[in-house]
Amino acid sequence: MTFDLITQDPASKARAGLIQTDHGAIETPIFMPVGTAGTVKAVSQQTLKTDVQAQIILGNTYHLYLRPGLDVLRQAGGLHRFNGWDRPILTDSGGYQVYSLSGTRKIKEEGVKFRSHIDGSQHLFSPEGVMDIQRVIGADIIMAFDECTPWPCEYQYARRSLDMTHRWLQRCIQRFDSTEGLYGYSQTLFPIVQGSTFKDLRVQSAEFIAAQGREGNAIGGLSVGEPAELMYEMTELVCDILPADKPRYLMGVGTPANILENIALGVDMFDCVMPTRNARNGMLFTTQGIMNITNKKWELDFEPIDAALEGPASTFYSRSYVRHLFQSKEMLGPQLASAHNLAFYLWLVKEARKEILGGTFGPWKEKMVKQVMTRL
Amino acid sequence: MTFDLITQDPASKARAGLIQTDHGAIETPIFMPVGTAGTVKAVSQQTLKTDVQAQIILGNTYHLYLRPGLDVLRQAGGLHRFNGWDRPILTDSGGYQVYSLSGTRKIKEEGVKFRSHIDGSQHLFSPEGVMDIQRVIGADIIMAFDECTPWPCEYQYARRSLDMTHRWLQRCIQRFDSTEGLYGYSQTLFPIVQGSTFKDLRVQSAEFIAAQGREGNAIGGLSVGEPAELMYEMTELVCDILPADKPRYLMGVGTPANILENIALGVDMFDCVMPTRNARNGMLFTTQGIMNITNKKWELDFEPIDAALEGPASTFYSRSYVRHLFQSKEMLGPQLASAHNLAFYLWLVKEARKEILGGTFGPWKEKMVKQVMTRL
Repeated sequence: MTFDLITQDPASKARAGLIQTDHGAIETPIFMPVGTAGTVKAVSQQTLKTDVQAQIILGNTYHLYLRPGLDVLRQAGGLHRFNGWDRPILTDSGGYQVYSLSGTRKIKEEGVKFRSHIDGSQHLFSPEGVMDIQRVIGADIIMAFDECTPWPCEYQYARRSLDMTHRWLQRCIQRFDSTEGLYGYSQTLFPIVQGSTFKDLRVQSAEFIAAQGREGNAIGGLSVGEPAELMYEMTELVCDILPADKPRYLMGVGTPANILENIALGVDMFDCVMPTRNARNGMLFTTQGIMNITNKKWELDFEPIDAALEGPASTFYSRSYVRHLFQSKEMLGPQLASAHNLAFYLWLVKEARKEILGGTFGPWKEKMVKQVMTRL
Repeated sequence: MTFDLITQDPASKARAGLIQTDHGAIETPIFMPVGTAGTVKAVSQQTLKTDVQAQIILGNTYHLYLRPGLDVLRQAGGLHRFNGWDRPILTDSGGYQVYSLSGTRKIKEEGVKFRSHIDGSQHLFSPEGVMDIQRVIGADIIMAFDECTPWPCEYQYARRSLDMTHRWLQRCIQRFDSTEGLYGYSQTLFPIVQGSTFKDLRVQSAEFIAAQGREGNAIGGLSVGEPAELMYEMTELVCDILPADKPRYLMGVGTPANILENIALGVDMFDCVMPTRNARNGMLFTTQGIMNITNKKWELDFEPIDAALEGPASTFYSRSYVRHLFQSKEMLGPQLASAHNLAFYLWLVKEARKEILGGTFGPWKEKMVKQVMTRL
């Protein structure tokens, strides 16, 4: 994987760049749709390419490990071959789901023992094991195994957790660097900055992560309930320490405003379930603001979802029709809403990139943050 | 609407024809995907065109009348404008749903009083009212209001019901012929042959229907539980009486084998929820037979769903992947399965048409009936 930093915005820390992987290029800043179990919920791979124009999607190691499982993925020739997505894929380490989905889990130095949320079976995720699993899944970018601390979090817990996350990182790196990809293309490992919302821990972690000299770096443990201002403070602090010539990935963020603000602080990559999860509940993100499409007010609105966007996901169907689909509990409602919301998120980062390249990102961002968060 | 009978198979009663409507042409024999509430469940209008290659879809008057309701449909400019489907649409009369979905309904000479399955509100469907409703929905082909008798059915009940259906038909025709389409294009009314599985009633009804001289005719009240042989017997009897120069529509039929057998008896048009409903439960119809994709046997089968078909719905995703989607209860499973099953049904009637045009329908049908009904 390579990263070219193309432009830095003169008035902020926003950057435009280009990542190259063996599965193709990624223009940054980028938003990555979340494909939990090898599928971006309710959106086909064809729609992801044509309507959404996704450049890279995520897979969740926890989910893929449990189902379809490593045997299927190995025999398929990896996740790209399994689901037919031939562009870049990033997998998380499974840590986050182990903490949030698994009923009982025990965190020890060795790793995390947990029970499957599907059948209650017992499993162990260790730093080494998770590297091996991600070799089998075969994502282009894989993530280190870490502990994502909850918020709020006691300082002592955050400090001890951070130390362990750093020790785990060294084990991840050792395992990763002594193994090879299984399918003939390169994989790269991103380490993750933790430290909750404690400045000294974040600085310490960012310096530790930067010192590993990997091809890209991630910021985890944010957007877990803390106020947005605190998230921005941490992001800025960390971005200032992480190397400028490597892409920076802020995990699990966020609203359209969160994304724009974090781009301004130097983040290059984002993922979040919000556009798809909220779509399934009828919340549509548009260039003019946020619509609850189930509201009566859209019943006779025959305008397209968002005429300012170009693709069929946003311009073909009327608000009235999409509302009707949700009222009638028709699957096509979530399908269309998911495709549209993702198309909007991809549009947002593409526009941000244009503005950065044009040197006009600052004022555009100020205007857009207000506009896209307006309740329609 | 016009119908050109192009070829009659020398060895059977199968026909190839061409229907012209103001929304485009329909090559017969044809299968019409069912778009209950203005959407073919889980399949977008784009996918219906590109992957499925549907030429005409159905709408259900009962569902559309209740939701989104006539105000929305009228203000949208009809169903085509509302859901963005610009090819032909056929609507049923709502009768079937009134009998099957509505908890309490009273059938009188005036019409049928029923309660909405959504909110329990009371409504009346009369022959005149249903014509007016279908004017508002704006389908190219609309159906007469009839009683679809259950099976088995007492002879006396079937006879009395048939007489009422015929009286209702005359009221439908009177109302339809004294009104006009609301949106600037033509609509046509198909009457429906009833008579349960009683030969004399079917003959009487077919003669009555034929005598109306409408642009097309339908056969209702079959595929409601009777043995397939009895259905074929009724279809043949009726097709021999209905005029040859008008399309014949067999309502609610059926399996791939049912469709091939009825084509051989002279039927031109079909609709059925089977390809979409069964898709949502993981049953896939293919050129080689029927697969339950949730079975363990497909877990490591990386072949496409049906390599013999051409479209992405059947060739892009592997059986293993689609099985995984169903195992994981991912919406994409029903989406892909629905698109594939419809693509298969459309392929089946297209192939049948080719064979009829080529004079080879008979032996092809014998082979295909066995092949497509094989359990894989």
